[in-house]
Amino acid sequence: MAVYTEITDEELSGFVARYDIGPVLSCKGIAEGVENSNFLLKTAKGSFILTLYEKRVKEQDLPFFLGLMEHLSKQGLTCPLPVRDRDGSALGRLATRPAAICTFLDGVSVRRPAARHCAALGEALARLHLAGEGFGLTRANALSVGGWRPLFEQAAGRADTVQANLESETAEILGQLERDWPKDLPAGVIHADLFPDNVFFLEDRISGLIDFYFACNDMLAYDLSICLNAWCFEPDFSFNLTKGRALLAGYQKVRKLEAAEVEALPTLAKGSALRFMLTRLVDWLNVPPGALVKPHDPLAFYRRLRFHRQVSSARDYGLEA
Amino acid sequence: MAVYTEITDEELSGFVARYDIGPVLSCKGIAEGVENSNFLLKTAKGSFILTLYEKRVKEQDLPFFLGLMEHLSKQGLTCPLPVRDRDGSALGRLATRPAAICTFLDGVSVRRPAARHCAALGEALARLHLAGEGFGLTRANALSVGGWRPLFEQAAGRADTVQANLESETAEILGQLERDWPKDLPAGVIHADLFPDNVFFLEDRISGLIDFYFACNDMLAYDLSICLNAWCFEPDFSFNLTKGRALLAGYQKVRKLEAAEVEALPTLAKGSALRFMLTRLVDWLNVPPGALVKPHDPLAFYRRLRFHRQVSSARDYGLEA
Repeated sequence: MAVYTEITDEELSGFVARYDIGPVLSCKGIAEGVENSNFLLKTAKGSFILTLYEKRVKEQDLPFFLGLMEHLSKQGLTCPLPVRDRDGSALGRLATRPAAICTFLDGVSVRRPAARHCAALGEALARLHLAGEGFGLTRANALSVGGWRPLFEQAAGRADTVQANLESETAEILGQLERDWPKDLPAGVIHADLFPDNVFFLEDRISGLIDFYFACNDMLAYDLSICLNAWCFEPDFSFNLTKGRALLAGYQKVRKLEAAEVEALPTLAKGSALRFMLTRLVDWLNVPPGALVKPHDPLAFYRRLRFHRQVSSARDYGLEA
Repeated sequence: MAVYTEITDEELSGFVARYDIGPVLSCKGIAEGVENSNFLLKTAKGSFILTLYEKRVKEQDLPFFLGLMEHLSKQGLTCPLPVRDRDGSALGRLATRPAAICTFLDGVSVRRPAARHCAALGEALARLHLAGEGFGLTRANALSVGGWRPLFEQAAGRADTVQANLESETAEILGQLERDWPKDLPAGVIHADLFPDNVFFLEDRISGLIDFYFACNDMLAYDLSICLNAWCFEPDFSFNLTKGRALLAGYQKVRKLEAAEVEALPTLAKGSALRFMLTRLVDWLNVPPGALVKPHDPLAFYRRLRFHRQVSSARDYGLEA
């Protein structure tokens, strides 16, 4: 939620002149995306999003992200389409940062998703998984099970300052997951961060998916478990079974889950809750004192984890038999 | 440079439904304006700026600001035009804040104005002064000479922590200005904050003026002196006489300065430099430790003040005899 890099009018017009999108009519820094600087750019040819990639995004990953958005767009999925410059390149450099211009998507993200939004999201997620097939590049998921212990170690000795017994409980869950983590489930390109912020709606219909900067190759059902965590809990951290049912049914309308995926779902949901808890915990413990931007509360995902530990089968998430 | 208030999709669509501008297509928090929360709103009818007024803007002043923009627009000046809702009101309430929707202006502000920009700005400022005639409401300038001593007292005892001898030098200049401050110069509506940020250009032509939330009634030449401070100094705080000449000539192309205004210009320029130095000094001294948003450096205007103290007549700013 911040613009980190400022661009001068001269740098901007010089950069945009490399594209076939007409002269700049306006350019506003927008509060979208936590990792990068984003600008809403208007030119004679329409509206675009100009993104400057900041430190947290690795430059060598950008061809994967930009290539993926182009691939998905070609498959008919509505996501930002990188615009190529006159030399055919989708990746440029502006104000010393790697930079890209993508098409602008209409739509508004919903703050409190209702079951009908979850149903639409489930369908869109499955379509995304199908559309990812055939994309040539790959990117490992650095935030899957192998990445959690290093994160946990960054918080070691300090987790209990956030919540009593958080350290021992996390150690126990992490050990379980490292033992039980599923293998050989259907895999492909996943979004890996499909929270309500990253889904645009126009009157209850999904108008676009954005922010592919965590996308990677991993188990498809893991992506679904992220959406269960991100879309189906209430503000008091209770699980809304109606929303879970809508999400899973929506997904299966487009892509039927295999038996092994259904069986693994509780483990995957525990894992994805742990993944967000751990990254938030590390951010939370490393926030400079007095900082104006408060990181997300890790305990929101600790509370979800507690729910997942009670779950005995995918039926508890609303999966129809 | 911040969005302070977040709006839910439901609050937004409810608010926009009161206007005849069609349903919301998108809404992005933008980094524009320091005092308020601003959103770039797209509807079926076009682009708009949605503003939520935060604490620093007094609610009782809003009819003046909104009425002024409407008046100036009617006079043919390009500035944001407040959109009235179906009940004819330009001022509503959203997320507990007073809120207004204005038309969106194309254009980009220049980071480093050249002389040609200063010339255009001079003309636009004079047109603004003429267009303000006949506007029915008035608002006193709380940040004119009478407001400076209370500001100075807020920094008392601490100014020298910013720069050696700043306290005694400021006291001396303030005393002089309180004695010598001009009266009976031509007065009217002034913008009072016409920095390059608030002026949009499209290919060297001014496409609009924005941010009227310091506008008030005061001496017109005081507004011109603010622009001398805001547009004609280089990053090293040297005064660029070519830019000063362009600004003053541009202004006089549209509105000829009276002899008394010309004579008062050095005093007015000293006063407006002091005004920005004092508000910045108070902000600077009151910033919470560790805050991520750094206030503007008050010394930028201390350095300008030093230049103005050497000036003997308006000719030193580039006024043609």
